[in-house]
Amino acid sequence: MSSGSSPRTPRTHDQNPSYRALLLPDLKQMLETNNEQELAAFCAELHPVVIAEILEELDPPDVWKATRHSEIGRLVELFSELPLSLQEELVDIIERPRLAELIQHMASDDRIALLSRMDKDHVEALMPLIAQAERIDIRKQLEYPEGSAGALMTTEYASLPEDLTVRDALDRLRTMAPNSEIIYYIYIVDEQRRLDGLLSLRELILARPTARVADLMQRDVVSVRVTDDGEFAAQEIARFDFIALPVVDDQNRLVGIITHDDVIDILQKEATEDAYRQAAVEPIEDSYMETPMTTLWWKRSIWLGALFIAEVFTFSAMATYEHALDQIKVLAMFIPLCISTGGNSGSQAGTLIIRAMAMGDVKPGDWLRVLWHEIVMGIFLGLTLAAVGFLRAAMTPGKVLGDVDRWMFAGVIFQAVACICLWGTVVGAMLPLIFRRLGFDPGYASSPFVATFVDCTGIMIYLSIAEVWLL
Amino acid sequence: MSSGSSPRTPRTHDQNPSYRALLLPDLKQMLETNNEQELAAFCAELHPVVIAEILEELDPPDVWKATRHSEIGRLVELFSELPLSLQEELVDIIERPRLAELIQHMASDDRIALLSRMDKDHVEALMPLIAQAERIDIRKQLEYPEGSAGALMTTEYASLPEDLTVRDALDRLRTMAPNSEIIYYIYIVDEQRRLDGLLSLRELILARPTARVADLMQRDVVSVRVTDDGEFAAQEIARFDFIALPVVDDQNRLVGIITHDDVIDILQKEATEDAYRQAAVEPIEDSYMETPMTTLWWKRSIWLGALFIAEVFTFSAMATYEHALDQIKVLAMFIPLCISTGGNSGSQAGTLIIRAMAMGDVKPGDWLRVLWHEIVMGIFLGLTLAAVGFLRAAMTPGKVLGDVDRWMFAGVIFQAVACICLWGTVVGAMLPLIFRRLGFDPGYASSPFVATFVDCTGIMIYLSIAEVWLL
Repeated sequence: MSSGSSPRTPRTHDQNPSYRALLLPDLKQMLETNNEQELAAFCAELHPVVIAEILEELDPPDVWKATRHSEIGRLVELFSELPLSLQEELVDIIERPRLAELIQHMASDDRIALLSRMDKDHVEALMPLIAQAERIDIRKQLEYPEGSAGALMTTEYASLPEDLTVRDALDRLRTMAPNSEIIYYIYIVDEQRRLDGLLSLRELILARPTARVADLMQRDVVSVRVTDDGEFAAQEIARFDFIALPVVDDQNRLVGIITHDDVIDILQKEATEDAYRQAAVEPIEDSYMETPMTTLWWKRSIWLGALFIAEVFTFSAMATYEHALDQIKVLAMFIPLCISTGGNSGSQAGTLIIRAMAMGDVKPGDWLRVLWHEIVMGIFLGLTLAAVGFLRAAMTPGKVLGDVDRWMFAGVIFQAVACICLWGTVVGAMLPLIFRRLGFDPGYASSPFVATFVDCTGIMIYLSIAEVWLL
Repeated sequence: MSSGSSPRTPRTHDQNPSYRALLLPDLKQMLETNNEQELAAFCAELHPVVIAEILEELDPPDVWKATRHSEIGRLVELFSELPLSLQEELVDIIERPRLAELIQHMASDDRIALLSRMDKDHVEALMPLIAQAERIDIRKQLEYPEGSAGALMTTEYASLPEDLTVRDALDRLRTMAPNSEIIYYIYIVDEQRRLDGLLSLRELILARPTARVADLMQRDVVSVRVTDDGEFAAQEIARFDFIALPVVDDQNRLVGIITHDDVIDILQKEATEDAYRQAAVEPIEDSYMETPMTTLWWKRSIWLGALFIAEVFTFSAMATYEHALDQIKVLAMFIPLCISTGGNSGSQAGTLIIRAMAMGDVKPGDWLRVLWHEIVMGIFLGLTLAAVGFLRAAMTPGKVLGDVDRWMFAGVIFQAVACICLWGTVVGAMLPLIFRRLGFDPGYASSPFVATFVDCTGIMIYLSIAEVWLL
């Protein structure tokens, strides 16, 4: 949850993203003259999201210069909306007492996201400057594994005991006056803070003031454990369309909540990671423009290198059929076509299944249905492409064909394309299911790897068929 | 918004998805004996989301048999949670008066999603059975283009005039008693229903009962137009972490809202479409398992066919260099490696840029920065791969090499791999930006098409370099 996630809307109605282009020169002007009052006014005027989008365009020292005069509440809002990589750079610029104050006031999930990326020594140096209650909270939450519900949750939420009337409950809520929308679900806990029930603010508003919370509350509450995967928590929120989901420890004690806006972040991060795997890029943590060149080179070259080395086997596959390639020259001309047929049909089938698994439509137990489905599909797709291949092969110039029979050769291409397409489709569809069964992310079974495997086997299928008919 | 999106949680704490396997046999038993009371009790017991997930496993006639005895409120909740394709099948089974009642009670966004997929004649036959107010609402909303904010919004929301005290506002809200979470943002409108302000339920609860709404409300409200793209609306909700976003007509009159749970659906649909485009599948509307075989065959074969035909040009590219291929047999052996180098580096760069554009990190105006970035990256990646290629080529058996000089040949492979990798990287990175500039979805500039284009050009680069050094 971000502290900027207040229900307030930006103080501008201008939805044209060019306001960034309009306001940035103003801001740069203020920075040059170092006009403290104007800068503070600028930072207070617009919605934190909008200001943060403008600040992103500046160098870290200028970001701090522009925001340092804001009052702490606004500073926290602005800081939390900045990209994590920029927050990390600012941490080295901001004087230590101010930084400690900032971290102390941040929403617990935003704070943990930053601290877990910071240098351990730096974090330890800050700790004595942070109030004890917050410090204990931070130490506890930093222990949860990265990406777990415990690491992603916010520890601010609205909770009440069950022995209250509706009127008392509303009065208590008013005195808590939580900072954000987390007031919309109220969690009912016992003396040990065990999660007993849930009441929405809507239900509370609509109930008689003398009704008892214990009689109104929903007793069976969907929750996740601190150790559960954050992605699972996100899926549960999406599944039930919740605004927030409670996080409990192993004794069912309420320790935090995950909110609807985190779901979007988690799901977008997942979608990006899937897309990267599909294109053989090791997931990068920051945005494309912010990632250092060397990191990007490393993350890209390891996969490209692995694929390249795998592809070297195509040479070995072809060397096995050297005799056929030597005797019938036209065979080499159709190798790229045969390779791409297998690669494309394989990556297509793979993506469909990976995506269907991500959406929960296909489970590993469905493998037999998927296999049958993809065999039928592979046959039909194969025949479709083979027909095109047959026509193209039949039009080969006589000079290139040499003494090979035109129709015999077209027949070989027909058979090869049909077989390779079927093979690619079945392999592409089955690999994600096998990967999941083996405990790997199915995304790793994605296009370039499927394609490389199918490339090699495709060459062998093609040249074997050619040997049978043409030698 | 789904009518099942009540803040109530399921009446089960069992988060193990195997409850489906546990409860399905019970349900089938009840269906066999056609025990109406048991069926109605079953459908009333659990959270609609959970029941809908179990119902999905049944044939449409059994789904209707299981749910038909539920009271209308629950029936609407269950029906709205079912996949659209199943809803469509049920529409043909449910007797017309009941269907009209069902549609009349559905949330307006769920209703429009279903009606816009139904046969026009069927919709017209139902219309006279639907209450006039709802009918007018439906006709109006059906006119908005598919995927627009107007088509995705729900027309139920909480609105109040500004000349109220907090106490009066709360009393009015209680009498409206809206069915769902839409109560958390209250829109303030004038007599012409023009959107004047926004107040959150939280702000209302925390304010003094005698304070005036006009003094409390936020006056500049972020909104979208009915004609705006639904994806834009989703991005705005994600950007500001809103629970809901108002939709206005061209005179700033409030006509509906889009809620946070729709954002997740819209973003997931987008992610799936992007993944499909990347793997050359025409986006499918239903889940993998629910899409008819012929639809899937068509959507898959058109792209595979297009790629196949494009790939036929590799033959022409190779035919141009027939002379070189004829004279130096070892050249053909390295063609698959050269092809895949270009394809992989191209699809990797393409995915990075497409994803960065989707996340807003890269804009079309950044093209020069991206070009420079990718040229440097392409050179480094190319040199990395070329080193591996050089080693592999140097190890070619003498028998295969014939009378070609070993180091000369390894040098050719080094140059070819480096050039093709650089070329693939630059083309892959630039095409999405060019597509966006031309007004197409950058996703279409994705891997298989980039790969096919780079395949052809890669062959030509490789054989040109070979001709220079070896002939």
